[in-house]
Amino acid sequence: MTDRLEPLLKKMAVLGIDTFLVSDLHVIRWLTGFSGSNARVLLGGGRALFFTDYRYAEQVKQEVLNMEPVIIQSSFVNTFLEGGYLSGSKVAIQAEQVTVQEARQLEKKLSGVELVPVDGFFDEFRMIKTAQEIAAMKHSAAVSQQVLEEILPMISPEVTESDIAAEISYRHKRLGAEKDSFDPIVASGSHSALPHARPRPERFVPGSLIVIDIGCICNGYASDQTRTVALGKIPSEARRIYEITKDAQQFGIDSARPGMTGRELDALVRDYIGHHGYADCFGHGLGHGVGIEVHEKPRVGKSSDDFLSLQSVFTIEPGIYLPGKYGVRIEDTVVMHENGAEPFQTFTKELIEL
Amino acid sequence: MTDRLEPLLKKMAVLGIDTFLVSDLHVIRWLTGFSGSNARVLLGGGRALFFTDYRYAEQVKQEVLNMEPVIIQSSFVNTFLEGGYLSGSKVAIQAEQVTVQEARQLEKKLSGVELVPVDGFFDEFRMIKTAQEIAAMKHSAAVSQQVLEEILPMISPEVTESDIAAEISYRHKRLGAEKDSFDPIVASGSHSALPHARPRPERFVPGSLIVIDIGCICNGYASDQTRTVALGKIPSEARRIYEITKDAQQFGIDSARPGMTGRELDALVRDYIGHHGYADCFGHGLGHGVGIEVHEKPRVGKSSDDFLSLQSVFTIEPGIYLPGKYGVRIEDTVVMHENGAEPFQTFTKELIEL
Repeated sequence: MTDRLEPLLKKMAVLGIDTFLVSDLHVIRWLTGFSGSNARVLLGGGRALFFTDYRYAEQVKQEVLNMEPVIIQSSFVNTFLEGGYLSGSKVAIQAEQVTVQEARQLEKKLSGVELVPVDGFFDEFRMIKTAQEIAAMKHSAAVSQQVLEEILPMISPEVTESDIAAEISYRHKRLGAEKDSFDPIVASGSHSALPHARPRPERFVPGSLIVIDIGCICNGYASDQTRTVALGKIPSEARRIYEITKDAQQFGIDSARPGMTGRELDALVRDYIGHHGYADCFGHGLGHGVGIEVHEKPRVGKSSDDFLSLQSVFTIEPGIYLPGKYGVRIEDTVVMHENGAEPFQTFTKELIEL
Repeated sequence: MTDRLEPLLKKMAVLGIDTFLVSDLHVIRWLTGFSGSNARVLLGGGRALFFTDYRYAEQVKQEVLNMEPVIIQSSFVNTFLEGGYLSGSKVAIQAEQVTVQEARQLEKKLSGVELVPVDGFFDEFRMIKTAQEIAAMKHSAAVSQQVLEEILPMISPEVTESDIAAEISYRHKRLGAEKDSFDPIVASGSHSALPHARPRPERFVPGSLIVIDIGCICNGYASDQTRTVALGKIPSEARRIYEITKDAQQFGIDSARPGMTGRELDALVRDYIGHHGYADCFGHGLGHGVGIEVHEKPRVGKSSDDFLSLQSVFTIEPGIYLPGKYGVRIEDTVVMHENGAEPFQTFTKELIEL
């Protein structure tokens, strides 16, 4: 992980930043591997310093190998000051992370220092995944896919959406995941037409579509996948939007090329769905980057100028939603190779009728 | 919930705030009951306006009864501007919630408006629970206590900490909770001496103490409880720190009086543990407020000047930790009445030997 520091220090030099105060735990995990819940990193003056509290003194020795560890006695800021750890007068903070309150407290304490809020400083680096990160994400995807395989046979008119959601979270953990990467979506009946439906304590209705959108975190890396299945015989229109969504999703995978923008890939799939008569039924973006966070860069939507770079990882998840009736969403997480996108998931996209 | 608005509007008038832009979803849930994931509230000009996106159009009709709902078309800020919803020139934002990035974007868009970051504006109001909130928290505590009862018989040298943690999360949901209020702590062996241990995929060791710290969210309200149990025969020193912790915790409950500060109650229990020879073995604060968030005001620790007011709800959770050996923590969540603290949990604090 020492490799990660070099380009960051170069970018700091270009921007005239003396010290970067990193406060986002996701960035800190990416930089160091640290999995605890309280830490700061200072980059600058030719050093990389890692600060945490006494609870993590042991854990730091095992996890953080590329920085000098400092165990704080009182607060982070006091430790920075007492130890003389802030080099230079221009200290950058993460604008998208630090609250106004924190910034004001810092300013008060660090007199003589100019605080420079910087937007998305780490995004361009985090977006490009290493082989190790890609392997971790494939593992996370495989774990969640196994859970999907396990829970499908459990779906019946006798159980509820919440029952299945609880099974999903449980099985993620039993298979070694740290946790869900987001609250599972299990949406049947007309709720399948709500892209962000919450599982209800209501039984599955025969003759309906069921959207299952799940993911987990393994070794710090997220997975994200959606499949839509049928319980019993479904109307022909439901089958029709299923097939269009399935083909649109495959078209998205086949069309992705490194260097495209998120906007371009989104437009291709959106047009495909539009040509098939459902232009107004796909209200959300095509996808989003995945990594340590389940939503990170690149954005893959209508207004995204983010590049789908080589070794970037993102979802392709078109949907067609007919309010009050039913909805379909199909999603894989893919990694961008030279010659196209490789999905992490291998679960069938043919319509499963339970 | 309309009652909640009155004192807020009065406080705004005192501070000379024309409009308050509320962005913290916990505050918004407290103000309105809204349980979705995207919303803003504007208070001011004699109105209370509720903004969310199209996904929640239906949900708002059911949940938000005390404000005028507005469904945004593009962004919140654009909707504020287009609808002329910002009255006056002094707009307050939540300093502890809004990031530097968001504040800068707001400032750019809202020219002619003075943004005033305000710290903890809602804390003093949220701290005092209504009868309805207290009932919700008792229910949440009862659900999690039932889970504790269910999982204790499952603990044996054949299962792992992670197994039991997964069971806890699963059973919370199966009993109707929205989710865990925090990741369950199940810590045995020397890990019981780490106050924030994460469950490991390692089997329980006979002859050790096991700290189980769990909680859930039901109907928006959190619970939090800790019990320490023994697996098999434990050393006499372990039993000794168990008894001291148990008595210290009871002493905390018995000593709490409305109007005390968090610091005062913390000091009483800390001194108790000190008098019994374990002054250096209780490293964390005595407790914390609980409500819509599992950590909210009042703080109950060494440096807290927060008052333990009538109808405030907070935890009392002393612990004694002997690094490398074993630890004990015992915790209830209590509500402050005129004549003393009432714990929500009724689970025995006598040492259970599994």
